Amino acid sequence: MFHGLSAFPLTPMNEQGLQEREFIRLVEHLAEAEVDSIGALGSTGSYAYLSQAERARVTQLAVASADKVPVIVGIGALRTRDVLIHAENAQLAGASGVLLAPVSYQTLTNDEVYGLYETVGQSLSVPLCVYDNPGTTHFTFSDELHGRIAQLSQVHSIKIPPVAGNQAAVRERVERLRALIPGDVTIGISGDPMAAAGLSAGCDAWYSVLGGLFPETALAITRAAQAGEPDKAQAINCELESLWALYRDYGGSLRVIATMAEITGRVSHPCLPLPLKTLQGSARERVVKVIEQLSLV
Amino acid sequence: MFHGLSAFPLTPMNEQGLQEREFIRLVEHLAEAEVDSIGALGSTGSYAYLSQAERARVTQLAVASADKVPVIVGIGALRTRDVLIHAENAQLAGASGVLLAPVSYQTLTNDEVYGLYETVGQSLSVPLCVYDNPGTTHFTFSDELHGRIAQLSQVHSIKIPPVAGNQAAVRERVERLRALIPGDVTIGISGDPMAAAGLSAGCDAWYSVLGGLFPETALAITRAAQAGEPDKAQAINCELESLWALYRDYGGSLRVIATMAEITGRVSHPCLPLPLKTLQGSARERVVKVIEQLSLV
Repeated sequence: MFHGLSAFPLTPMNEQGLQEREFIRLVEHLAEAEVDSIGALGSTGSYAYLSQAERARVTQLAVASADKVPVIVGIGALRTRDVLIHAENAQLAGASGVLLAPVSYQTLTNDEVYGLYETVGQSLSVPLCVYDNPGTTHFTFSDELHGRIAQLSQVHSIKIPPVAGNQAAVRERVERLRALIPGDVTIGISGDPMAAAGLSAGCDAWYSVLGGLFPETALAITRAAQAGEPDKAQAINCELESLWALYRDYGGSLRVIATMAEITGRVSHPCLPLPLKTLQGSARERVVKVIEQLSLV
Repeated sequence: MFHGLSAFPLTPMNEQGLQEREFIRLVEHLAEAEVDSIGALGSTGSYAYLSQAERARVTQLAVASADKVPVIVGIGALRTRDVLIHAENAQLAGASGVLLAPVSYQTLTNDEVYGLYETVGQSLSVPLCVYDNPGTTHFTFSDELHGRIAQLSQVHSIKIPPVAGNQAAVRERVERLRALIPGDVTIGISGDPMAAAGLSAGCDAWYSVLGGLFPETALAITRAAQAGEPDKAQAINCELESLWALYRDYGGSLRVIATMAEITGRVSHPCLPLPLKTLQGSARERVVKVIEQLSLV
């Protein structure tokens, strides 16, 4: 399950609630495209902004709409008590695996983060992916801490943040981490612009925002890298440079992909929870042009 | 209300729930000491970790136990929808004012943060204090944005983060901000070690963690500064240097003050929501020594 393309769909919503039909269609599209797994309620799925009941509902809809594709569900929360509830609800709803980030308000210590994974791991009957995303959690894992957490029996994957530099830098980073973790724990890259390099440098999976809306494009990169054709994977990645520029210029992937989903009619506007907003004005016009240029539909 | 010493008590809790009796005693102590206001459910009160119902309950207990001291209540949340609910509940429970931080998971834009304060301000009948705490929210206000938000009619105070440097640096920072905001919007300093300098440099209030557990000590600094005796305020501050060293060495004020509350028997252990933990081992022994040295009880 923690291999290949893991596609992270948006959870379309407005101030009145979830847009269930739109979410179902997003998930069905991923299943039809035959992605390797679906990451519901990731950062792209705005898990942190939803209530317990909404998160349980989204999980049920994802599992019901994913056909045979395994569904991985984000269970992160500020408080361990709430993480345990989300974990239980995810399992009851049929999630095949869970994704846990050390979400913080007060800065967390290494000891506190280890304790979180230990406690939650003990409560789980499905595998867990450690979600390392310092941009949203403001917690930075040391390799030593990754190594300790990866020894916990429920941990089967680590979702690492983008690696600065070229493919050699990614390879070095993956090898350093690989030496510290059990052989059956996979490493997945995130940060879409790094995916071609990451997969070609030995990452087992791509936890993908792009793949949540445009699975065909993300699959083309993934399958090329898996087939041992790094140049082909990199060529497709290079064609998407104008999209990566949007990510850089507009604070990451979420607002760009959510704006693209609105523009292409896949979701209604608004689709993000306030105070978050999709791009408007000249930024939105630029997104329209990139969609046309790249023929993303 | 947004003047003088605003004391921020802990909200003692464990994995089973709130420790209501302990919280009531903390608030009663603040009222007996005659602090100028009580900041319930601040960062020190772990607002971000509590459910809607728990936050409403804490507000009710604070108002009921505060005698005539006004109670300011933290209403921050990741989602505007939830902030509006907390605001309504705080007002129904008798809060005299509210404190709102732009809590984030996805990094927020200036436009999104302004929209949050505008929307929430329109829903309020009590005054609001803007809570600028980049250490926990990971949002950095520009002075220009502070100026725009302070024009909103419900905004009556700004809680600023610690200012690096000496009293002159604080004065310069306060004067720069003062020039951009209406005359009836107060400025309050936070970061206990900077309070003596902040109050003497023209801050109207001290939003105080120390004052939430040891109001007499915090009042001594506050009253000296208010009486135009900056040297006296600074002398008391200097006596507390071993406490400020604990803040520096153990990741801020929360874990230190919570550990002190446990050691002095004011709250049970554990008193923080997991994954957060109070200090243990040699760190805790050092806290014991500082309590004895400073005769903090």
